[in-house]
Amino acid sequence: MNTKIEKYYSLLKEQKLIKGSSGLLSWDQEAVMPEKNVEFRADQISYLNTLLHSKRTSTEFINLVEDLSGKVDNLDPIDKRSVENTKRDIDKVKKLSQNFVETFSKAKSVAQSAWRKAKEGNDFSLFKPHLQTIIDLTKQYAELINPNKPTYDVLLDDFEEDLTTEEVSNIFTPLKDELITLLANVKQDEDHPNIFKNIDFNADKAEHVVRELVSKIGFDFTSGALGRVHHPFETSLSPYDIRINQSYYHKDLAQTLTGAIHELGHGLYEQNIDEKYFKTSLNQGVSLGVHESQSRLLENMIGRSKAFWDYFKPLIHTYFPKAKDISTEEIIHQLTFVQPSFIRIEADEVTYNLHIILRFEIEQEMLKPDFNIDDLPEIWNAKMQDFLGIIPPEISKGCLQDVHWSLGAIGYFPTYSLGNLIAGQLWNVFTKQNPDYNSNISSGDFSFYFNWFKENIWQHGSFYKAKDLIKHVTGEELDSKYLVAYLKDKYLQNYTK
Amino acid sequence: MNTKIEKYYSLLKEQKLIKGSSGLLSWDQEAVMPEKNVEFRADQISYLNTLLHSKRTSTEFINLVEDLSGKVDNLDPIDKRSVENTKRDIDKVKKLSQNFVETFSKAKSVAQSAWRKAKEGNDFSLFKPHLQTIIDLTKQYAELINPNKPTYDVLLDDFEEDLTTEEVSNIFTPLKDELITLLANVKQDEDHPNIFKNIDFNADKAEHVVRELVSKIGFDFTSGALGRVHHPFETSLSPYDIRINQSYYHKDLAQTLTGAIHELGHGLYEQNIDEKYFKTSLNQGVSLGVHESQSRLLENMIGRSKAFWDYFKPLIHTYFPKAKDISTEEIIHQLTFVQPSFIRIEADEVTYNLHIILRFEIEQEMLKPDFNIDDLPEIWNAKMQDFLGIIPPEISKGCLQDVHWSLGAIGYFPTYSLGNLIAGQLWNVFTKQNPDYNSNISSGDFSFYFNWFKENIWQHGSFYKAKDLIKHVTGEELDSKYLVAYLKDKYLQNYTK
Repeated sequence: MNTKIEKYYSLLKEQKLIKGSSGLLSWDQEAVMPEKNVEFRADQISYLNTLLHSKRTSTEFINLVEDLSGKVDNLDPIDKRSVENTKRDIDKVKKLSQNFVETFSKAKSVAQSAWRKAKEGNDFSLFKPHLQTIIDLTKQYAELINPNKPTYDVLLDDFEEDLTTEEVSNIFTPLKDELITLLANVKQDEDHPNIFKNIDFNADKAEHVVRELVSKIGFDFTSGALGRVHHPFETSLSPYDIRINQSYYHKDLAQTLTGAIHELGHGLYEQNIDEKYFKTSLNQGVSLGVHESQSRLLENMIGRSKAFWDYFKPLIHTYFPKAKDISTEEIIHQLTFVQPSFIRIEADEVTYNLHIILRFEIEQEMLKPDFNIDDLPEIWNAKMQDFLGIIPPEISKGCLQDVHWSLGAIGYFPTYSLGNLIAGQLWNVFTKQNPDYNSNISSGDFSFYFNWFKENIWQHGSFYKAKDLIKHVTGEELDSKYLVAYLKDKYLQNYTK
Repeated sequence: MNTKIEKYYSLLKEQKLIKGSSGLLSWDQEAVMPEKNVEFRADQISYLNTLLHSKRTSTEFINLVEDLSGKVDNLDPIDKRSVENTKRDIDKVKKLSQNFVETFSKAKSVAQSAWRKAKEGNDFSLFKPHLQTIIDLTKQYAELINPNKPTYDVLLDDFEEDLTTEEVSNIFTPLKDELITLLANVKQDEDHPNIFKNIDFNADKAEHVVRELVSKIGFDFTSGALGRVHHPFETSLSPYDIRINQSYYHKDLAQTLTGAIHELGHGLYEQNIDEKYFKTSLNQGVSLGVHESQSRLLENMIGRSKAFWDYFKPLIHTYFPKAKDISTEEIIHQLTFVQPSFIRIEADEVTYNLHIILRFEIEQEMLKPDFNIDDLPEIWNAKMQDFLGIIPPEISKGCLQDVHWSLGAIGYFPTYSLGNLIAGQLWNVFTKQNPDYNSNISSGDFSFYFNWFKENIWQHGSFYKAKDLIKHVTGEELDSKYLVAYLKDKYLQNYTK
């Protein structure tokens, strides 16, 4: 048994070496690579991903994992969970023929480039046939993985283990009503000022602010790095190489800092997984929802609070002396004004989840047999009118705004709202156990935050299933009431906390 | 034949994809990677290099290349030269057992880390046994590659095709005398000022200066990038991804700029190889000597001239206003003062080649059967006294200063001086054909330089052998008189041109 588990870990190590190399090629493409290298890089990534797929689906590896998973009761708990976790993935992968994988992969690649052109040209017809192909292949995919489960359940399970459409509906339906009512009662702000517009924005200086800020909160630069990219993201290239990547091109300090704090939340999670999981398949955040809860909680609950900016305002002044006249209250207003808008990623905390629920409802429509893709723009606009009272003036600000469908990621969007809900529920427990959190933050003490989340969430990696972890930490199943209570408390009082 | 040559290029493409990935992992290690990731990254690089070796020495590839190389007269000239070039490399590689390759590779890895500690601790005994191992394995290597050639000839050939010890001696022996005489007649400067010491050095700003400077001379950022590293180097990750990497940590603007101009010379060479060579094995500079000639020529002949700084001085002022009072003459003095010193990489143009000749003589000693490694420090110091009239105060500034031997690169040093000599010879032809070069440079017109070197050197990649290329462009075999004449002209007049 010992030799087999060692062999399993050594094959896993090989896969990690390849995956991390492919990950670096992708990271570098966003952060450093010159534009003319696009094709060569695509060939490199494809070559390594094919190599990885061949290792993962090799007879040797599959037989070993199946053998081990038949005897998991002889394994220690970590080995057992790792084997089960790998088995779960392999059981899916082996149902897909090489031919299907390549067809789907090419369709996504073509769809992504078509989507980019359609969005730039504001022309749905350029993307429509490709989206139809993606939908068709997604249905085939779900059929191959599990013909006995509803399509959308199969898709959700890829992003959030065991999650069902029914569960999401049971959470989203009351949440939608709550949020629409809340929005009607919150003071909106059509003409909010951009308070940082006259500070002589400079990317080098903004990056120094980001570096000092994330370092102060707990990011470890001996096992992490800061990248400069077009669209912010976090990527884990190995347990000792976690990269948070920020954009500076829009020249908006508020957007740069909230974006950086968001990615920091992901980065802290990945950087604080217990070393005992490093050789296993458990050395990553447990699910997209839990991951997003860590970024959202840090970005919104902490990063959009007065205490936070009371402490960090002087850091901004160091690099941008012209920001000296801006008060903490003005910063908080900039970061928390509420206003229905077209673009999901620019949405405030109150309206954000309505953008997600809209996509959740539309995705279910899309998978129905009688769905007509020509109706998509109208369905989108009708729901925007229903939920937010506004209609996009052009389709690039409507159903063409997100990249996800072109990537074949149908069933992904709900995890963003799950992240917010989990953040709300964790924040409720955390603040009860740390009643002095505001004064700690305003004095620059983040150890109480860091230690609590490391202890309760981060260190565990994927050892516990997401649902079990949430129940273990909060004592309850996921419930939207905590996020709603938090939003009401924050936004019904014209927030200045 | 057509199918075979296509198969050859497709296997070569696979090797390029792997090699470029391994190259990125190495680049990133110097430029971005956090320190705790060292072991994981070493495993990744080793994994990909082993994969590359297995592809390169596969029966399929070797048989194909041998088959093609038996019928080269049926191939077009580019295919022919590529096949021959690959065959030459394979003929070496296949003489080495996997066991020998791994033993040597591990010995180098251990020696490198021992060298680092020895240099830091100023303690030769820490490196001595490892250097002895490297010497022993290097002799074995040469014996395996070609037992009928002198050891040092075998080693030289790895870095400069067909070069022999005798040829190098015939060039270096008179050069040594010329340089020692020249040094005795040049005005030396013991207490040169660091003219940039009060400009408030800032790495971000220095990087902006570097970016604008290299761009102006012709570096193409659509197929290249600028990295920030500890020790400057150039690396080619693909024909469309050439990276020049600069160091800013020493906070010395003169060193930053001359270093950047040097790496730019390498980068321009790699970036301007004709596209027709991209799929072949010829898409790189032809030899280390010719490569170094391009960096040295740009760094020294152009980058240490008054015309150059007349043009670029205002760029420095833009980012460092406190440099406004510094005259071009002061900059030129900073970049061209002559003074014997201990460290090769800090040496001026007059003394630099004496550092190389010293190493060339010592390396030949090292390979003799009766060489006693305990004598190395004394041999080093005696030659320093002979050549430069100074003796290193400590061994870290003596025979422990360079990384090369720990990397197993015995026979590499001569290519640095060959680079200077080739630069001298090319410069002689170039300036005769472009008599207005100084006024062109001082008006910021680099097209005459760019076009001449692209036409005569860069575009050809490795299509011509180094010796043939030099003869073709200059009409002569390599001759040290041109470098000597250039140095006399520049340094015997207390340079202010």
